[in-house]
Amino acid sequence: MRMTLLGTGDASGVPVYGCECVACGKARTSNIRRLPSSALLETQCERILIDTGLTDLTVRFPPGTLTRIAITHFHPDHVLGLFLLRWGCAPPLEILCPPDNEGCADLYKNPGTLKFKQLRPYEPVFVNGLSITPLPLIHSKPTFGYCFDSDGKRICYLTDTIGLPPETRSYLMKRPCDLIVFDCSYPPREKKNQNHNTINDVLQIYAESNFKQLVLTHIGHELDAWLANNKKLLPEGMIVGADGMMIE
Amino acid sequence: MRMTLLGTGDASGVPVYGCECVACGKARTSNIRRLPSSALLETQCERILIDTGLTDLTVRFPPGTLTRIAITHFHPDHVLGLFLLRWGCAPPLEILCPPDNEGCADLYKNPGTLKFKQLRPYEPVFVNGLSITPLPLIHSKPTFGYCFDSDGKRICYLTDTIGLPPETRSYLMKRPCDLIVFDCSYPPREKKNQNHNTINDVLQIYAESNFKQLVLTHIGHELDAWLANNKKLLPEGMIVGADGMMIE
Repeated sequence: MRMTLLGTGDASGVPVYGCECVACGKARTSNIRRLPSSALLETQCERILIDTGLTDLTVRFPPGTLTRIAITHFHPDHVLGLFLLRWGCAPPLEILCPPDNEGCADLYKNPGTLKFKQLRPYEPVFVNGLSITPLPLIHSKPTFGYCFDSDGKRICYLTDTIGLPPETRSYLMKRPCDLIVFDCSYPPREKKNQNHNTINDVLQIYAESNFKQLVLTHIGHELDAWLANNKKLLPEGMIVGADGMMIE
Repeated sequence: MRMTLLGTGDASGVPVYGCECVACGKARTSNIRRLPSSALLETQCERILIDTGLTDLTVRFPPGTLTRIAITHFHPDHVLGLFLLRWGCAPPLEILCPPDNEGCADLYKNPGTLKFKQLRPYEPVFVNGLSITPLPLIHSKPTFGYCFDSDGKRICYLTDTIGLPPETRSYLMKRPCDLIVFDCSYPPREKKNQNHNTINDVLQIYAESNFKQLVLTHIGHELDAWLANNKKLLPEGMIVGADGMMIE
């Protein structure tokens, strides 16, 4: 089982449109960008796209190259690509999702080839030797992280969220994950955000947990600017995610 | 005043994802594609983007390069690009639109730098020597076509629609347009579509009108396949639109 981060940016991405801060300037000149947070999970039999904010999915994934999609929630930066993927001559594609009856715009009304399947919290789905467990997160729309178990290995993908609900934290503490990909959008700041973690939130959760390797994702340009000078403050085992990063 | 067609495709675009029909195959091999219908209208002082289904707007239009945007309606294939354009370090951008209080997803709730301005049917807006008149169309969501008048020249952009409301038709007949860009999604077919024109619908409207030059847009792959063998049936003055086509 391996995961590839396809995007590690927040809703604005990096560089931010029109922004001339240090981080955005560097992203432009180096052409190292942060696209909307998303990932590809692969096992021998499964190829699962997690979140669909990328707008080139029809090019990246010709029909038949994905076994299914799992989306964390229905905010536009996580589902935009579905609007482009739904109309086509392709076999039906299962979209695992949280029980959000609002969805996004007309996706439920006009699903095209997409087959939405609402999951229940903590109730795993089993597919081809892979277990996928939806873990509720704390966000302004019903949101699931996903815990993937295969061949004794466990990878968790947890964005978008501010902190973790007690039940989800307990779930994660019961059996340590080999790898956690975790929401970390902002640098330290006084005002608490209602939807995303600051680096201080993540450092505190990490200190209180038994997590081994934690990869930051959903990174905003202000955090990138902060990291440029403060990366050394991150504990061993905490990694800054990057688009294209393959993690096993 | 001139107009450039940036996209001339229907919601699926051409080639359609996974489709192997003649038209889609040709589009793939020739790399001549139909992106979501949209256009750029330019005068000496104005640069107006009409519809925002393109997903590379942040690259095409750096901050300050558009004077405003006009959208025909809030279906995803006409507004997807706004989700990517709204978060940024850019001056406020006025979005002229029909009075659709539903909008699309959370665009109204989280507009970012976008300033939506709902227009009233047939009530022109005047900007820098240009008059923009919203013309109601017939579609499953409140939809405006736009009539642009500048320096004695008139260009109309009319998609998405099936036919024309009597009042809009009268408006167009009163003073002929130099150029009409018109919805034509399908080849001849028996079943009437509720949202878009077939080529026969357009031929009939054209015959009954005093339109000079009419350019087809919002073209689907089935119409492209039909046109490959039947282009000679189009009257003089009726032109098949293409992405990148500049019309004056």
